[in-house]
Amino acid sequence: MAASGADIAGNVAAPAALARPRAQRGNEADFPTSLVAKFGPERPLKLDSGAVLTDFQVGYQTYGTLNDERSNAILVCHALTGDQHVASTNPITGKPGWWSEMVGPGKPIDTSRYFVICANVLGGCMGTTGPASTNAATDRVWGLDLPLITVRDMVRAQAMLIDHLGIDTLFCVAGGSLGGMQVLQWAVLYPERVFSALPVATGARHSSQNIAFHEVGRQAIMADPDWRNGRYFEMGVNPRKGLAVARMAAHITYLSEEALHRKFGRNLQDREKPTFGFDADFQVESYLRYQGSAFVDRFDANSYLYLTRAMDYFDVAADFGGRLANAFLGTKTRFCVASFTSDWLFPTIENKAIVRALNAAGASVSFVEIETDRGHDAFLLDEPELFATVRGFLSSAGQARGLK
Amino acid sequence: MAASGADIAGNVAAPAALARPRAQRGNEADFPTSLVAKFGPERPLKLDSGAVLTDFQVGYQTYGTLNDERSNAILVCHALTGDQHVASTNPITGKPGWWSEMVGPGKPIDTSRYFVICANVLGGCMGTTGPASTNAATDRVWGLDLPLITVRDMVRAQAMLIDHLGIDTLFCVAGGSLGGMQVLQWAVLYPERVFSALPVATGARHSSQNIAFHEVGRQAIMADPDWRNGRYFEMGVNPRKGLAVARMAAHITYLSEEALHRKFGRNLQDREKPTFGFDADFQVESYLRYQGSAFVDRFDANSYLYLTRAMDYFDVAADFGGRLANAFLGTKTRFCVASFTSDWLFPTIENKAIVRALNAAGASVSFVEIETDRGHDAFLLDEPELFATVRGFLSSAGQARGLK
Repeated sequence: MAASGADIAGNVAAPAALARPRAQRGNEADFPTSLVAKFGPERPLKLDSGAVLTDFQVGYQTYGTLNDERSNAILVCHALTGDQHVASTNPITGKPGWWSEMVGPGKPIDTSRYFVICANVLGGCMGTTGPASTNAATDRVWGLDLPLITVRDMVRAQAMLIDHLGIDTLFCVAGGSLGGMQVLQWAVLYPERVFSALPVATGARHSSQNIAFHEVGRQAIMADPDWRNGRYFEMGVNPRKGLAVARMAAHITYLSEEALHRKFGRNLQDREKPTFGFDADFQVESYLRYQGSAFVDRFDANSYLYLTRAMDYFDVAADFGGRLANAFLGTKTRFCVASFTSDWLFPTIENKAIVRALNAAGASVSFVEIETDRGHDAFLLDEPELFATVRGFLSSAGQARGLK
Repeated sequence: MAASGADIAGNVAAPAALARPRAQRGNEADFPTSLVAKFGPERPLKLDSGAVLTDFQVGYQTYGTLNDERSNAILVCHALTGDQHVASTNPITGKPGWWSEMVGPGKPIDTSRYFVICANVLGGCMGTTGPASTNAATDRVWGLDLPLITVRDMVRAQAMLIDHLGIDTLFCVAGGSLGGMQVLQWAVLYPERVFSALPVATGARHSSQNIAFHEVGRQAIMADPDWRNGRYFEMGVNPRKGLAVARMAAHITYLSEEALHRKFGRNLQDREKPTFGFDADFQVESYLRYQGSAFVDRFDANSYLYLTRAMDYFDVAADFGGRLANAFLGTKTRFCVASFTSDWLFPTIENKAIVRALNAAGASVSFVEIETDRGHDAFLLDEPELFATVRGFLSSAGQARGLK
């Protein structure tokens, strides 16, 4: 079994020249620089919308080794613009994995102890079927013909991947933001397959304000004439400006006012006086413009529409008579919930609502609110208290699970 | 003098058919449905940018009667998307004036006692020279050829209007948001001409986060191919989509999360189930889309660029060695500052910074933080505590001023 585990865990090494040119980004959707699990017509996936996906794939990465008991697997779920490259170099950007501070040998999610799996979400653009993928039935890019995806659909697809990997019960499911939504959905949909769950900086439903910000982003994309009703790939164009504006708006919500003030304040960018024009006079403008344009090089605009919509639709309690606690009744999963003081996208109050529901359901749950001025983004950053929390939680859960 | 005051106060009555078609909006910039003061080449205005405006006009409205002593004039300053129609029907929208709850006979700013003046700001699009106005020198629409405008420039133009009206000292200068910035600027630039000042929901400088949100809006406008580098009027187009996205993003910042939750929550719009598509499924989406498209019918995209930029540049302390208190040293103006608990655009902390500086400068200042969940927008709404505060402040200042 160890050999098989090692086999499964064999990551595809990223090529030496790491940053791939933009034009190749489209390829990543069908032929990702990672492992891929393909599900043919014999393994259909019924979606929440009622549509059935009959040919799809899941791009994923693994790190570490699955033990003989197949009991040390941790599924890491990524956020809105993340991907499967959680702890290895991103093949598009050439940058370190998005959670490489958290996941790796000796890190809080220790790949020398645990077998870590991270899959691109359904609707994504990095190798799991999404609007940028080719529809096998038509040999055209899916675009908006792809049925809408929900967080539950993402989790169902991940469960098929976990089956494919021969894993029955995950030792832990962990993730922040949209990743945290997936963690909750896992615990609700497959409670017996989730030994422990670590939702970070998330909510059991998307708030009205968050839906509003997402809608601004979607409207910015759809307002771009190069969006072409989602058929931009075939037209040889790309709604770069619209997607950049969407990213800029969203990026503000990932930070806190304090962090922006500390990092940029009202400092001018490479000049002593304002230009009295519409250039990026202020550092914060220059920073935002960079965030917008860098994002366009690595992300698909239609994927952005699909994934924001999935978050908007997310509302765990809705399926349980509006009472969140009912979603967790009888669960044996151990939970650890973490939030950040300056996170106004998923503020502590949203995280505490999860904790309250878990308590009401009699579940095992610990909760930590971490003091930081870095806003929602804190979950991706070097936050020692978060690292200590994760380390402690996994260590204690590992003992209960009988992990060495 | 009473006759002359009445003459000055003679408002242009709005026509019976109040809502004017969109095509006429452009005309409003040159030929507003209000009073107009014109300043020819003999009255140049030197701007902060160094440019000189030699032919410009100020569109304004007045309400009530100037007393014989010319001592009961209140200048009301409007916010980003406001105009001179503070208490009378708006000629474009056909709706009541933007502060008609606050200004009128028997209202807190009582037009049966005070002579109220409200002028469209420099850079605006409702009759004061702005990018939608015709440049007399070229007979073309100004567009981006108009020099950049600062809040100080706006106030200088207003001072010329006040001269024109034969008023030496204003009994009060009042306004919220960008209007509050103008109030502060008046008190700093012309302390002896401002008997009392009422800045509401504002700041002595624009924060990094606020600059960031403005930059998103500007980028949305400039990303619209119909913007045509600001020359859309001549091209017979209008960057509607970009301006609508800018408005949507800004509108979220005017409300609070609580208000959005209370008003919309996750309620669906005229449907029982989500459509699993990108329609406006949620009420909050539908509301935002409406806000965006209604705004485009009444506002000029280039004006939006200019006025947001003026707010970004605003930083009173910058001219006083970085110490805000120095801006108010020796002032005899009586101040009343008001903020709202749920305003996250101009939070209480920004308003308190003004109060602290005024205290440090030995100025007369009262401060009230009003409990409300309506966010920044509260200053425009029916907020009894704000009304009572304004009434009390003006009454006490009126006694000191010897007003009957």
